[in-house]
Amino acid sequence: MSEEVVVLAYSGGLDTSCILKWLLNKGYKVICYMANIGQVEDFEAAKVKALKIGASKVVIEDVREEFIKNYVWPAVSYGLIYENRYLLGTSLARPCISVSLVNCVKENNALFVAHGATGKGNDQVRFELACYTLLPDIKIIAPWRDEEFTKQFQGRQDLLKYASEHNIPVSITPKAPWSMDANLMHISYESGILENPNQEHPEDLFSMSVDPKFSPNAPIRLEITFKKGLPVLLTVNDTRTFSGLLDIFEILNEIGGSQGVGRIDIVENRFIGLKSRGVYETPGVTILYHAHTDLEVFCLDKEVYRIKQLLRDRLSDYVYNGFWFSPEGEYTRKCLDLAAETVEGTVKVQIFKGSVSILGRSSQGSLYNADLVSMDKHEGFSPQDATGFINIQAIRLREYHRCLKQNKK
Amino acid sequence: MSEEVVVLAYSGGLDTSCILKWLLNKGYKVICYMANIGQVEDFEAAKVKALKIGASKVVIEDVREEFIKNYVWPAVSYGLIYENRYLLGTSLARPCISVSLVNCVKENNALFVAHGATGKGNDQVRFELACYTLLPDIKIIAPWRDEEFTKQFQGRQDLLKYASEHNIPVSITPKAPWSMDANLMHISYESGILENPNQEHPEDLFSMSVDPKFSPNAPIRLEITFKKGLPVLLTVNDTRTFSGLLDIFEILNEIGGSQGVGRIDIVENRFIGLKSRGVYETPGVTILYHAHTDLEVFCLDKEVYRIKQLLRDRLSDYVYNGFWFSPEGEYTRKCLDLAAETVEGTVKVQIFKGSVSILGRSSQGSLYNADLVSMDKHEGFSPQDATGFINIQAIRLREYHRCLKQNKK
Amino acid sequence: MSEEVVVLAYSGGLDTSCILKWLLNKGYKVICYMANIGQVEDFEAAKVKALKIGASKVVIEDVREEFIKNYVWPAVSYGLIYENRYLLGTSLARPCISVSLVNCVKENNALFVAHGATGKGNDQVRFELACYTLLPDIKIIAPWRDEEFTKQFQGRQDLLKYASEHNIPVSITPKAPWSMDANLMHISYESGILENPNQEHPEDLFSMSVDPKFSPNAPIRLEITFKKGLPVLLTVNDTRTFSGLLDIFEILNEIGGSQGVGRIDIVENRFIGLKSRGVYETPGVTILYHAHTDLEVFCLDKEVYRIKQLLRDRLSDYVYNGFWFSPEGEYTRKCLDLAAETVEGTVKVQIFKGSVSILGRSSQGSLYNADLVSMDKHEGFSPQDATGFINIQAIRLREYHRCLKQNKK
Amino acid sequence: MSEEVVVLAYSGGLDTSCILKWLLNKGYKVICYMANIGQVEDFEAAKVKALKIGASKVVIEDVREEFIKNYVWPAVSYGLIYENRYLLGTSLARPCISVSLVNCVKENNALFVAHGATGKGNDQVRFELACYTLLPDIKIIAPWRDEEFTKQFQGRQDLLKYASEHNIPVSITPKAPWSMDANLMHISYESGILENPNQEHPEDLFSMSVDPKFSPNAPIRLEITFKKGLPVLLTVNDTRTFSGLLDIFEILNEIGGSQGVGRIDIVENRFIGLKSRGVYETPGVTILYHAHTDLEVFCLDKEVYRIKQLLRDRLSDYVYNGFWFSPEGEYTRKCLDLAAETVEGTVKVQIFKGSVSILGRSSQGSLYNADLVSMDKHEGFSPQDATGFINIQAIRLREYHRCLKQNKK
Repeated sequence: MSEEVVVLAYSGGLDTSCILKWLLNKGYKVICYMANIGQVEDFEAAKVKALKIGASKVVIEDVREEFIKNYVWPAVSYGLIYENRYLLGTSLARPCISVSLVNCVKENNALFVAHGATGKGNDQVRFELACYTLLPDIKIIAPWRDEEFTKQFQGRQDLLKYASEHNIPVSITPKAPWSMDANLMHISYESGILENPNQEHPEDLFSMSVDPKFSPNAPIRLEITFKKGLPVLLTVNDTRTFSGLLDIFEILNEIGGSQGVGRIDIVENRFIGLKSRGVYETPGVTILYHAHTDLEVFCLDKEVYRIKQLLRDRLSDYVYNGFWFSPEGEYTRKCLDLAAETVEGTVKVQIFKGSVSILGRSSQGSLYNADLVSMDKHEGFSPQDATGFINIQAIRLREYHRCLKQNKK
Repeated sequence: MSEEVVVLAYSGGLDTSCILKWLLNKGYKVICYMANIGQVEDFEAAKVKALKIGASKVVIEDVREEFIKNYVWPAVSYGLIYENRYLLGTSLARPCISVSLVNCVKENNALFVAHGATGKGNDQVRFELACYTLLPDIKIIAPWRDEEFTKQFQGRQDLLKYASEHNIPVSITPKAPWSMDANLMHISYESGILENPNQEHPEDLFSMSVDPKFSPNAPIRLEITFKKGLPVLLTVNDTRTFSGLLDIFEILNEIGGSQGVGRIDIVENRFIGLKSRGVYETPGVTILYHAHTDLEVFCLDKEVYRIKQLLRDRLSDYVYNGFWFSPEGEYTRKCLDLAAETVEGTVKVQIFKGSVSILGRSSQGSLYNADLVSMDKHEGFSPQDATGFINIQAIRLREYHRCLKQNKK
Repeated sequence: MSEEVVVLAYSGGLDTSCILKWLLNKGYKVICYMANIGQVEDFEAAKVKALKIGASKVVIEDVREEFIKNYVWPAVSYGLIYENRYLLGTSLARPCISVSLVNCVKENNALFVAHGATGKGNDQVRFELACYTLLPDIKIIAPWRDEEFTKQFQGRQDLLKYASEHNIPVSITPKAPWSMDANLMHISYESGILENPNQEHPEDLFSMSVDPKFSPNAPIRLEITFKKGLPVLLTVNDTRTFSGLLDIFEILNEIGGSQGVGRIDIVENRFIGLKSRGVYETPGVTILYHAHTDLEVFCLDKEVYRIKQLLRDRLSDYVYNGFWFSPEGEYTRKCLDLAAETVEGTVKVQIFKGSVSILGRSSQGSLYNADLVSMDKHEGFSPQDATGFINIQAIRLREYHRCLKQNKK
Repeated sequence: MSEEVVVLAYSGGLDTSCILKWLLNKGYKVICYMANIGQVEDFEAAKVKALKIGASKVVIEDVREEFIKNYVWPAVSYGLIYENRYLLGTSLARPCISVSLVNCVKENNALFVAHGATGKGNDQVRFELACYTLLPDIKIIAPWRDEEFTKQFQGRQDLLKYASEHNIPVSITPKAPWSMDANLMHISYESGILENPNQEHPEDLFSMSVDPKFSPNAPIRLEITFKKGLPVLLTVNDTRTFSGLLDIFEILNEIGGSQGVGRIDIVENRFIGLKSRGVYETPGVTILYHAHTDLEVFCLDKEVYRIKQLLRDRLSDYVYNGFWFSPEGEYTRKCLDLAAETVEGTVKVQIFKGSVSILGRSSQGSLYNADLVSMDKHEGFSPQDATGFINIQAIRLREYHRCLKQNKK
């Protein structure tokens, strides 16, 4: 086989290191691509390892700011949430990484992308759909779906044996009995012992957040100001103030983490029709989700809110399934951007031992009208109108009652 | 005016006591109706008071069991929630009280129902729509929408003056600077100082639940077993077990309350087009909501779940707006009952300082298949299939890309 | 009563002529407003009549072009249709007239608007909601909901008597046993003998269209070209070509009318909860509806199309109910405008005896790819992928089957 | 290879005859299965042909009554329609045939099903998903997705050559330049010259219906009576009456066909993400669709109708995509059955030259109330109520206006 260039999404771990070697052995020239999306990782060590194994180049891209700006922030402003609970931390990272990965492919005139995602998961779909949309002619190598590869590597032991045979360094840290995926926004845990949905996740699983049982006894007060649905100002305990994009994000992660906010243990429906169990921690964005939800109902018209929520539910599914880049993804985002324009104001929030409590909210542009709703003020409202309103609503109900009675005869 | 019989929804408070007198003065014969739906109330004292003012009869009905059985339990099994946050505690009570109220009307051959609900609120709509559906020929007297009445009683001072003039006893407890509505399921707080959406609710507002800051430091472990979407068995801290309808409900309220679970401070969209601020505490049902949500995703097919959620959102709006009894209310309940049939199993839950955390779940009939989803097992799944799946999904995306590019030319 | 200025939406007919006199008798100064929206009307005669009765001024506004441009055309590009059948001809006219009416109010410093719409219909809601949104402080006089007026005028005889007493000229043409409402886009017929939903509408009811039984035996061929969802070019029988806004509209009305296109007889659900029977003829827009529908599925991505249809159904209800001007109306229109951007191309249509048949369509930007779908071409498609696609889809179905079987045990 | 039993869905045509031989050559024992679902077919000749080629058995099942009863009738009662136009004639046939095919598999202890559906179409998905759900362990052979087969047979010439080499008789009738699929309900035409979406379908394409240009000049009058959403009685021209299941169906097909009813030429979105052009004729069910639509709006409550339409749109997609047998298919059918219960009454219809016109409708149980809606009757309705109704609806709109104005400052 002639030497063709593959860009491998490389993690430095056992799987992708073996894949790297396996690709080299098949005659490919392999460029290892790593995205720094906020995970705890020794990129330098991974680079050295990849080069040692035989990668012709290692490209490390810092996509953290793009991730927050182009994926996390919009998700906050739309209120994205999958099946009512999952804030899509992994799903949002995939298109972000894919953009950068595809750029790497283009810059290096590569024909192939290879990845270590498994055949039962969502990530293979998310990576590949993003790649195919961004670069329709790209060829994808997914060893975990390749018959030759999967025959050779039937379990972890085969990988270890292969590593040892090919001088691939293996971490001496024992592998956790689950797999995890981390980025700036969240960490997800799944597989291994977590595959039994009734087995409780271990208490020491989490790493971004403190167990609420051991978190400080003093609640933290926040004021979060939004413009067009996006956080622009954060005040902590009425004293410290933050306004930069990454600053707000990091401080919220820190605060949420310090009080054990944003931990969930769920079973979710994967795109490919399986149910899987996932444990997630998403400290900062969980705070934002609640604050934004509060402000949104406060600001948006009742009916607009309902349409917006329908679109949000659709987009949440699209993003989970890997369709961030797609006609429907782009269309719903444009529609949701229109709705976000008037979501502006400040929400007061208390953070305490896993809970996010809303204390109050204000907005220049809210449709809330304290005078109009007040029980003590009577201008701008004729109570008699409500009589007519109710009577007209009752027409349909009375007719239904009449019909039911008549049909019983 | 000849003496016509009015059934007055009576609370024993200042408003409905004045309304009682006012109706008597207009020549009506007035029967006072009170529902015991779990609120803290001295029913006997209220009865004495009403009779003293001139009611010809006081009817007190205990509707607590009906409330749980026919309204709260179904709401749990459907997952009803209004605008993502409000568990509909007041909305569910209204149709329950209305049924009993209409029975009282029928038994006493009354022509009229009177109530003290205000003209800006949801409850007038809920009571009246329920009454009109249950008894289409009923006549309703809503003094707070009656021009004569509202001219006479422009504020609390006018009520106090009228009470004093007519020997109506007035409570010496000073009135709280907000109004509240309580039942077995929840207490709601609104109006008064709460009308400013940015003013924080007072710390001592709540009465069903303890402030999480002062709740015990030991988490509580629960196991809740559901049949057809309904809780049938509750185990607390692996020791105490409860199975009766009201028992489960009361224990969950107690446990949730002891740990400050279920407090929310929201702005919501009223049916009549106003935004209003409400503070709610719903300890027990908040626990059930989370446990049920977890089990539902675990048990239901992915697509059925999505349809079910659409129907749930509709029904939540119907219930909030007062359409529990309506063609659409009945229809969606029947559909949701069909979906609830397979929601069966046990959820493990931890309650701690305002948080409800899911720890695990099991079910005989779940579509979850640990073997199929396992990363370590390979039967029943050909990873190669995922390649075809992704490639077919990509057709549409590639075509879109082709089109965009072509249109740019 | 001091002389206050009322702008009366005047038709020249018996009802609004009596209302004019009645308003004058109550001491109002009355300006009569008439919109020329394409109905057959002797505006000059109506003006003379109004002035004779006592109107201080008669304002006649030609809103035909605004109507087509700002209401009919967008409705075509969104595909608006109410309850699957009604193209909203009257509903679209109401906001158009209201804008012009409110301008008349402002220009004449009037405080009041009066109209002759009845209390059971949709039009009162549409006019008044539009007026309240455009000019929130406006006061509305709706005599047919005024107790004094409706007591005085209990039926047509009372109007005739009043007219005769007050020298109001009455048309000698006998009144048709139904009411009608006409504009450039359509004519609607309702009430009178049509109130029996089982009584067939008379054969001679229609006036914009010929009975298909008597229409020419030669089909008409059209080619309609759309840009951004809007018709911009029309070719008739491969010979005559039209491109102006009003030209296309008028020619399509003429052609549709000549072949009896666009007649429907339906029962619809009014906003106020009543079912009513309506007969409509909408020749030109019916042709456009079918051509546009065809092009839209041809051009839009499958998933975008589905979201778009949801939004369309919502907007159709909003428009029918009188919420053209509303947060939700504006929001959905903006979203639908985004979807319309790529609906471009040409549709070939045959018009014949009431039927609109699509013959073919072409588009520069369609996602249709003849090569890809062709049974005779094999590039760009691996049939093997379909195997994987189907197998993955089947996972969920097999699991369901497994569960059903297991639960039966 | 040991002799394993395959049930082949056999049509008697060139493709499946070659597939039969090919399977035999691979060592399978092949049972040919044919469903009589109403297509024009010489079953006896096909049987002889299959046996001659080497089939060990030919099973011919008459599924016509099951098709009407279990698939077409429900589809009518739900109002199923795909992308607003296609009545799903082929999609409904597939699960019906699959049930019978799977029975044949079971009875003959076969392991395999083989079919001649292509890799780009919907039918492969529909057949296989149905089979996998009904018999999860079944193995499917789809030669048109088999690499060996598709290499050998790259076009029609290869099939003809193979037929000639293997003594497979070939029809002497020249193949039409499109493919068709027929059953009792409809005929579909696609592929070949129809793949160009702008090329008009030939005038002589259709075979169930007469060209409206040449249909009789006398309209036909029908009265169709429905019970629970299903047609139970048909009167033609006020004289002939039909009540049997198949009778009604056949007569409607005949009448619709005689007047050219139910012809459409569309582009549709296939499940696998391609757009394809299809031409369909569906004479009888088109009549039923319109009559049923009319009755449904007449009978159902306004809000129930809206929910029902959402469910209908979902089910239409499920059926088109091959998910008749699926959790979501079963669930929505149950929900839609609940809604159909009150759709009862009689619709008067006129059929003329391609058009289906509704003339009137009646129902014992309709919510239509002529007295209530009448402009000449005043009982049961206080026009003053409409004032309150409108004013309350306007609150939200005025607030929006206030906000817009305030935000402009």
